[in-house]
Amino acid sequence: MGELGHKLGLDELAGGAVGISKALLAEFIGNLLLNLFGCGACINVTQGVDAAPNIVLIAFSFGLAVFAAVSAIGHISGGHLNPAVTAGMLATGRVKLARAILYVVAQCAGAAAGSGLLKAFTPDRAAGKLGVTGLGTEVTSLQGFGIEFFLGFVLIFVVCGVCDPNKPDSKATAPLAIGLTVTLGHLLAVDYTGSAMNPARSFGSALVANEWSDHWVYWAGPVAGGVAAALLYVHGFSAAPVDIPP
Amino acid sequence: MGELGHKLGLDELAGGAVGISKALLAEFIGNLLLNLFGCGACINVTQGVDAAPNIVLIAFSFGLAVFAAVSAIGHISGGHLNPAVTAGMLATGRVKLARAILYVVAQCAGAAAGSGLLKAFTPDRAAGKLGVTGLGTEVTSLQGFGIEFFLGFVLIFVVCGVCDPNKPDSKATAPLAIGLTVTLGHLLAVDYTGSAMNPARSFGSALVANEWSDHWVYWAGPVAGGVAAALLYVHGFSAAPVDIPP
Amino acid sequence: MGELGHKLGLDELAGGAVGISKALLAEFIGNLLLNLFGCGACINVTQGVDAAPNIVLIAFSFGLAVFAAVSAIGHISGGHLNPAVTAGMLATGRVKLARAILYVVAQCAGAAAGSGLLKAFTPDRAAGKLGVTGLGTEVTSLQGFGIEFFLGFVLIFVVCGVCDPNKPDSKATAPLAIGLTVTLGHLLAVDYTGSAMNPARSFGSALVANEWSDHWVYWAGPVAGGVAAALLYVHGFSAAPVDIPP
Amino acid sequence: MGELGHKLGLDELAGGAVGISKALLAEFIGNLLLNLFGCGACINVTQGVDAAPNIVLIAFSFGLAVFAAVSAIGHISGGHLNPAVTAGMLATGRVKLARAILYVVAQCAGAAAGSGLLKAFTPDRAAGKLGVTGLGTEVTSLQGFGIEFFLGFVLIFVVCGVCDPNKPDSKATAPLAIGLTVTLGHLLAVDYTGSAMNPARSFGSALVANEWSDHWVYWAGPVAGGVAAALLYVHGFSAAPVDIPP
Ligand SMILES: [Ca+2]
Ligand SMILES: [Ca+2]
Ligand SMILES: [Ca+2]
Ligand SMILES: [Ca+2]
Repeated sequence: MGELGHKLGLDELAGGAVGISKALLAEFIGNLLLNLFGCGACINVTQGVDAAPNIVLIAFSFGLAVFAAVSAIGHISGGHLNPAVTAGMLATGRVKLARAILYVVAQCAGAAAGSGLLKAFTPDRAAGKLGVTGLGTEVTSLQGFGIEFFLGFVLIFVVCGVCDPNKPDSKATAPLAIGLTVTLGHLLAVDYTGSAMNPARSFGSALVANEWSDHWVYWAGPVAGGVAAALLYVHGFSAAPVDIPP
Repeated sequence: MGELGHKLGLDELAGGAVGISKALLAEFIGNLLLNLFGCGACINVTQGVDAAPNIVLIAFSFGLAVFAAVSAIGHISGGHLNPAVTAGMLATGRVKLARAILYVVAQCAGAAAGSGLLKAFTPDRAAGKLGVTGLGTEVTSLQGFGIEFFLGFVLIFVVCGVCDPNKPDSKATAPLAIGLTVTLGHLLAVDYTGSAMNPARSFGSALVANEWSDHWVYWAGPVAGGVAAALLYVHGFSAAPVDIPP
Repeated sequence: MGELGHKLGLDELAGGAVGISKALLAEFIGNLLLNLFGCGACINVTQGVDAAPNIVLIAFSFGLAVFAAVSAIGHISGGHLNPAVTAGMLATGRVKLARAILYVVAQCAGAAAGSGLLKAFTPDRAAGKLGVTGLGTEVTSLQGFGIEFFLGFVLIFVVCGVCDPNKPDSKATAPLAIGLTVTLGHLLAVDYTGSAMNPARSFGSALVANEWSDHWVYWAGPVAGGVAAALLYVHGFSAAPVDIPP
Repeated sequence: MGELGHKLGLDELAGGAVGISKALLAEFIGNLLLNLFGCGACINVTQGVDAAPNIVLIAFSFGLAVFAAVSAIGHISGGHLNPAVTAGMLATGRVKLARAILYVVAQCAGAAAGSGLLKAFTPDRAAGKLGVTGLGTEVTSLQGFGIEFFLGFVLIFVVCGVCDPNKPDSKATAPLAIGLTVTLGHLLAVDYTGSAMNPARSFGSALVANEWSDHWVYWAGPVAGGVAAALLYVHGFSAAPVDIPP
C-alpha cells in the first residue's frame, strides 16, 4: 500500500480487520442505544404528542445514555458515538480518514436503527416525529448554527480534557464527565434547536421521521464546533507530560 | 459430589455455606431497599392515586436505590439485585446454576418484603397499586417486551463493561454507572411499561398488589435482553488483559 | 484517668483537645450548611407558603449539601453530620461515648444556627415553618417511625459500605455515594414524614419554628435504623482484609 | 524587579508569559461557557419571558457548566472561573495579586462574551434580561448579601477541601464536587438572589442586559464568603501531610 494509503489509514484497516469491525459494531450499538433511549424520552405515551417536553427528563436521558454507552464500549472504539467527536479526532490526527469515514457510517446506521426500533415500540398516537430535531419558535438557522456550534465545542472540549493522556486523574470519571456534558447541552438547547450536539443522532431521527428541515445545521454546527475545540485543546491546552507508573 | 453436581455448582454451595448465606442475605436486603425506595417514590401521599407520576423523581429513586445497595453489598454477593443480571452471569459462566437459582429466590423474596413494608407504611387512600408495573396506554405486550428487552440489555451491557476485570479504571465509578443506567431506563420506560428492568422488582409489586396482567413481559424481556448483552460483551467486547499491580 | 474513663473516651478528649475542638467545629459548620441549604430549598420565595413542594429540588439540595460538607470536612471529623451516623459508629465501637455526645451537641447547635440564618435571610411572608419536618396526610406516627427507620438504615448501611477500610476502591466516590443516598431518602419520604433521616436537621428546624409535633419520630427512627444497619454491616458484611499498598 | 514586585507577583508574570496567557485564555473560555450555558438555561424560547423558571433545570445547567469547564481547563489555570475563588486563593497566598487581577479581568470578559453570544443566539421575544441576577420578591439587599455570602462560602470551602494537596483521594472527583456545589447553591438561591455565587457571571449578564440594581451584592457577598471559607479551611481544616507515591 502506498504513501497516500498510509496517510488515509487504509493500511490500518487492512491489517486490523477484526479490530475495526469490533469498533464499528461498538459504535453502531452505542448510537442505537442513544437514539432509542434519548429520543424515546422525548415521547409522552400517556399524554401524546401535544404534551410539553420535560427538558430535565430529556437532558438526563441523552446524557446518561452516553454515559452508559461509553462505560460499556469506550475501550473498544474510543466511544466517539458522534461524527463531531470523530471529526475532532480526525482534525488532530488521532484517527485516520478511512477509519473516520467508517465510524460516521456506523454511527448513522446505529442511530437510524435506534430510531427505527423506537418507532416499532411506540403507539402511533404518541409517536409524533420521534424526537426529531428542529429549530425553536423564531430561532433562525444562523442562530441554530451558533447554538449547535457551541454544543459541539463544549462536548469535544471536555472529551479532550478528560481523555488527555497526561491527566491520568481524569480517567476514572471521564465517561461521567462526557455524559453529563451531553446533559448540559440539552438543558440549554432543547428549546433552541432540539439539541442535537451530534449529527448522527439528528440523522437517525430525520430518516425515520422523514423530516429534513434545516438538517444542515445539525451537521455543520457540531462538526465545526468540535473541530475548533479539538484544535484549540491540542495546540493550546494539552497537559504537560507526567511520569505515570506503568 | 459427582460431575453434574460440580457443573451445577452444588459443591460450591456445600463448601461455602457461610459465604452463600451472606450473599443471599445481601441480595435480599438490596432488593428490599429497591422496592421500598423505588416503588415508594411512585406514591403521592399528598395528592393520592390520581396524581400524574413525576418520572424524573421515580427514575432517580430507582437508580439511586441501586447505587446505594451496590455500594453497600456489592462486595458480598456481586450486587446482582436483579434476575436479569444473574441470568446474564449464568449464561456467561460467571455463576453456576444452583447459586443463580438461590439468588433469584432471595431477590424475589426481598422485593416482596420491600413492597410489603411499603404497603404497611402507606395510608390506604394513597397506596393504589404500590407502583406495580403495567403497560402504558395502547402499548402492546410485544412492544412492552421490546422495551423491557432493551432495558435489560443496556443494564447488563453496562454491568459487563464496568465490572470487566481488565478495565480497572472503571471500578471506582462502577456502582454509580450501574445505578444511573437504571435511572436511564426509567426515564425512557415509565410510561411504556412502568419500567421494570428487573423481574424481581416487578414480582414483588405484583405479589403485594395481586396484579399480574402481562407479568410474563417483565420476566421474558429483561432476562432475554440481559443474556443477549452478556453474551455479546463477553464474546465481542471484553477488554484485553492488562498488567495490574497486585 | 481510670478504666471507666478510658472506656467512655474521656482520655481521648483530654489528650487531643485541639483535635476534638476542630472536629466539633467541623460538625457544627457541616450541619449549619445542611440546614441552611437543605431547608432553604423547601422555601418558595416567589410563590410563598402555599406553593406545592418540588420534591426533586428538595432531595438534591439535601443530598448535595451533604456531599459538599463531607467533601470539605470529612477528613477532620469523619463527616458524621447526623446523630444517627454517630449512634451507629458508637454502637460498633468506632467512636467512644464522650466524643459521640459532643458530636451530637455540635450537630444540633449547627443545625439550629443554619435554620436561624435561614430565618434571617427569608422574607416573613415566605418563611412558613422553615422546612420543619412533619407527618404527611393520614400518615400515622408508627408509619412515620417505619419510614424514618429505613431512612436511617439505608444511610448508615451505605456509610459503612463506602467507608469500609478493606474496600479502598470505594474511597474516591464515598462522599458522592453518601450524599446521593440522602437524595434517595428524600425522594421517597418528603411526603411521608418531611424526610429527616437526621435528628439534628429535624431538631434545628423544630427549634427555630417552635414546632415539636411527633418530634420523637425523628430521633427514634433514624437512630434505631442507623444502629441496626451498623451492627448488621460490621458483623455480617465487612469486607475481607486486603493488602493495600502503603 | 524589586521586593514589592516579587510580592505582587509581577516577576511571575514577566517570566511566564506563555503560561499566564494560556491561563487567561482558559479562564476566558470557561466563563464564556458558564454564561452561555448557565444563563441560556434561564431562557424559555417556547413560552417566552413570562414562563416560571425551572429551578432544577437552571441549577444543573450552571453546575454542569462548571463541571465541564473545570474538566477541560482546570489543569491550565486552576479552573477558578470565579472572582470569589480567585479572592480566596489570593487571601491564602496561593496566587499573587498581579495574577489575581488578570484572572478577574479575564473572567469578567469571558462572562460578558458568553452573555453577548447568548443575546445573539436568542430571539428578542424570549431574551428578556438574559438571566441577569436580581433580588427576589421582598428580599432585602442585606438578606441577599447574606445568601450570596454563604454561596461563596460553601463553594470555596468545597474547593479547598477537594483540592487539598494532602487529600489525594479527592482529586478524581474534585471537578464533579465543585460543579455540584454550584448546583446546590442555585437550588437554594435562584428565588432569593438569582444565585450568582460568582461576581463575573453576574457582571457579564448585567453588562449585556444593562441592569445594575443591587449589583454590589453580587461582588461583596461571594467574595467575602469565599475569603472567609479559604481562611477558615487553610488555618483550621487543612489535611495533615501524607506520603504520596511520586
Ligand atoms: Ca416518556
Ligand atoms: Ca411521594
Ligand atoms: Ca426556593
Ligand atoms: Ca430553555
